[in-house]
Amino acid sequence: MAKEKDMGITVKKEDDLPEWYEQVCLRAELAEFSKVKGCMIIRPNGYAIWSAIQKYFDENINKPTGVRNSYFPLFIPESFFRKEAEHAKGFTPEVAWLDKDVTGEGERLAIRPTSETIMYDSFSRWIRSYRDLPLKINQWCNVVRWETEATKLFLRSREFLWQEGHCVYETEEECRKEAINYINLYAKLCEELLALPVLVGQKTEKEKFAGARTTYTIEAFMPDGKALQCGTSHELSQGFAKSFGIKFLGKDEKTHMPWQNSWGLSTRLIGAIVMAHSDNKGLVLPPRVAEHKLVIIPIIIGKDNAKILEKAKELKAQLAGFNPLLDDRDEYTPGWKYNEWEMKGIPLRIEIGPKDIAKEQVVLVRRDTGEKDFVKEKELNDKITKALDAMHDSLLKKARKSLKDMIVFAKNWGDLVKGIRERKLVKAAFCGETECEDWIKDKSGGASSRCIPFDEKVTEEDKCVYCKKPAKYIIYFSKSY
Amino acid sequence: MAKEKDMGITVKKEDDLPEWYEQVCLRAELAEFSKVKGCMIIRPNGYAIWSAIQKYFDENINKPTGVRNSYFPLFIPESFFRKEAEHAKGFTPEVAWLDKDVTGEGERLAIRPTSETIMYDSFSRWIRSYRDLPLKINQWCNVVRWETEATKLFLRSREFLWQEGHCVYETEEECRKEAINYINLYAKLCEELLALPVLVGQKTEKEKFAGARTTYTIEAFMPDGKALQCGTSHELSQGFAKSFGIKFLGKDEKTHMPWQNSWGLSTRLIGAIVMAHSDNKGLVLPPRVAEHKLVIIPIIIGKDNAKILEKAKELKAQLAGFNPLLDDRDEYTPGWKYNEWEMKGIPLRIEIGPKDIAKEQVVLVRRDTGEKDFVKEKELNDKITKALDAMHDSLLKKARKSLKDMIVFAKNWGDLVKGIRERKLVKAAFCGETECEDWIKDKSGGASSRCIPFDEKVTEEDKCVYCKKPAKYIIYFSKSY
Repeated sequence: MAKEKDMGITVKKEDDLPEWYEQVCLRAELAEFSKVKGCMIIRPNGYAIWSAIQKYFDENINKPTGVRNSYFPLFIPESFFRKEAEHAKGFTPEVAWLDKDVTGEGERLAIRPTSETIMYDSFSRWIRSYRDLPLKINQWCNVVRWETEATKLFLRSREFLWQEGHCVYETEEECRKEAINYINLYAKLCEELLALPVLVGQKTEKEKFAGARTTYTIEAFMPDGKALQCGTSHELSQGFAKSFGIKFLGKDEKTHMPWQNSWGLSTRLIGAIVMAHSDNKGLVLPPRVAEHKLVIIPIIIGKDNAKILEKAKELKAQLAGFNPLLDDRDEYTPGWKYNEWEMKGIPLRIEIGPKDIAKEQVVLVRRDTGEKDFVKEKELNDKITKALDAMHDSLLKKARKSLKDMIVFAKNWGDLVKGIRERKLVKAAFCGETECEDWIKDKSGGASSRCIPFDEKVTEEDKCVYCKKPAKYIIYFSKSY
Repeated sequence: MAKEKDMGITVKKEDDLPEWYEQVCLRAELAEFSKVKGCMIIRPNGYAIWSAIQKYFDENINKPTGVRNSYFPLFIPESFFRKEAEHAKGFTPEVAWLDKDVTGEGERLAIRPTSETIMYDSFSRWIRSYRDLPLKINQWCNVVRWETEATKLFLRSREFLWQEGHCVYETEEECRKEAINYINLYAKLCEELLALPVLVGQKTEKEKFAGARTTYTIEAFMPDGKALQCGTSHELSQGFAKSFGIKFLGKDEKTHMPWQNSWGLSTRLIGAIVMAHSDNKGLVLPPRVAEHKLVIIPIIIGKDNAKILEKAKELKAQLAGFNPLLDDRDEYTPGWKYNEWEMKGIPLRIEIGPKDIAKEQVVLVRRDTGEKDFVKEKELNDKITKALDAMHDSLLKKARKSLKDMIVFAKNWGDLVKGIRERKLVKAAFCGETECEDWIKDKSGGASSRCIPFDEKVTEEDKCVYCKKPAKYIIYFSKSY
């Protein structure tokens, strides 16, 4: 039994990223595969990360922007689904339907893959006048997309958890401004909470959301050179408003059609942080999402055991604000415990032994660097706070550097193919044509466009990396999850 | 437009409870019916109550008892479902299945009506030795039960939100003790958070959960004499452990079968508090679940408007801890606003007019009693806190009295029938036989057994109220939702 538990990660991150990733998720007990094909089980260690994301989100995104949580039905009538043609076309292949024997004579019911249609039917009744705008609704829920590709824990599964924000505005300008604001808030969440740098930008016509006029995205880059789309925000324009008959009486006492956006991020983010920060010892959790900021391990080796245990308990109480774990099991050695908690990603470890007690100090060890610090007991609270902040900053800095190092600029087609082959994130000028994008994917061995960064402009000299026609924008290409 | 919104509740609680209830839910914007038959939409005002319940729950039930949140798949393979015979039999009639065209060649997938089976399959892998016990898992999720009866907002719908706790123990004693502890914690939540008194007790054989050995319940009583089951806790004994092969290596190094309990409460609770506390003006929210504890209404009637508005904004900032609303719309009169916020159940109202400013005071009005109090500005914080506590206590006291007044003791069958006809909660001695319980339901016009209270013992003289055989226990009967 002990032996089985003892097993660490058996492959190296640099040797076999997919296998390493799966082992980290399984052994840190974040998630596991379910016997229901394509669905996963989020275990308490994984769900705690999701709860931390939800808490940050409700406090720092919903509250200041005036978005309110709600809950809409899991089932969507087929007729709703069909109302917006592009939307229906885009989602139909992956929709799961209820058995007709259940629904009886009525129309088919879909399990929600996203909730635009069922929400906007309600919005058409809720919105009467400009006084009801902006309307800002969010929901935390499960969604189902019947993927055929193999499940990857957190990264791809038929059911996942997410939030979906849905807002309605009087003007196009306000709608666009806020759609961009939400994607920027997502990027901020990634950096501030998850120490995860992302690229922010716009999707191409080919890659945008089914039913959107414009899709904004945040993209993280994984060590294998694949991009991971971590969140999107869509300017829906008036397409859904038209299909669902959403109208409002303006200040001018005339009837107008409002503007809408929707935006979502999912449990996929948990996969992103595992990929980005973890190492060959196991999970490295960015400290701000760690449920337990530290683990206290008493070094029980001699006659002072009782005294050491007592001190360890004292410390646990004293440090309650960091929700510490105390590992006082006597059937494992300290070394075994270090390995276990390193594998599970607890940000800090406190070791306390007989010598430390005499000196009124403890040993404080950082999970990411292994750095050891002898800390006087009375300074402990302060040092822990500082170590957690330092760890966050250092994870972010490292991840930023690694993102920067992955970017290459392709002056020509040869550069692009070489970059993709070398698992780089390739920046290039691009004409913007879907047909050309299809060719690039086909000829480069699977690179897709990731995003058009907000802050880069093309010049008249820039030509498309593939077709050499005048470039419309600078864009990133890479393989993706 | 304004007129439509202006409409208050058009029927009286005492005249037509179902219609009054629906109007309160709709006009306080707690929930609405969906076009998907049997499913409802929980609007932000309703969802805020659910969030308050979740927060209390995670802090006061999960945390102190060591229960951790997780997430299991929405879909349950038919073979899992069939493993525990009683469970399958009980739930089969209301299970919704996925369309076979989706699942393909594999087995049928159910939409979870409850998650015992899918969780316990995992538990059988997670649990190896006594060191892994107790295992305490909870999940917040949606469940689907394909009811055929008409939807009542919050009280009965095909999809609802709930939490389900699932624990595994080494001993039967620990398992029972904790199953009872959870039902007592539910009762505490109802009283402390929702000002809702409930009866706590055990279900009969007929009414217990499919697959349980013993079911404990909390039951609230509605003004129409119908009981509302608000939460249940089940001692599952070893039935599921046996079916799913859950075993552990004990301290004695032998293999044992563990003991399990499961327990849940749902969004139904929101309906219970609407029914219990609200009045003919609309919603009365128990203050501890109110998102906004108060609304500030400036009395803008004369030349001092700017000054009054400024003061109102100042108060809003000063009272931020109570998350106040400020209703500074100039198209409505103060009276109109009073009605609106009373209908929406905001616990306290602050009125501030020119005379009040001069006296450095405001008028503080309680939603439940209409009590007005002139409060000096500097005492406001303190007075609001006290008023909120007083309101909670007074709602609870009133609800307790009303529950007590509904109870009658039936010495004989005539008393029982009369009690049920008069919409009372009838206490009686009962033999415990399912057949007798069926007869009672049939002959009394629909009364079912609600619960066997923990604290009442039968004597040798007590005879069953129906069959006159020796009584097994004292029990409550009533109609129910």
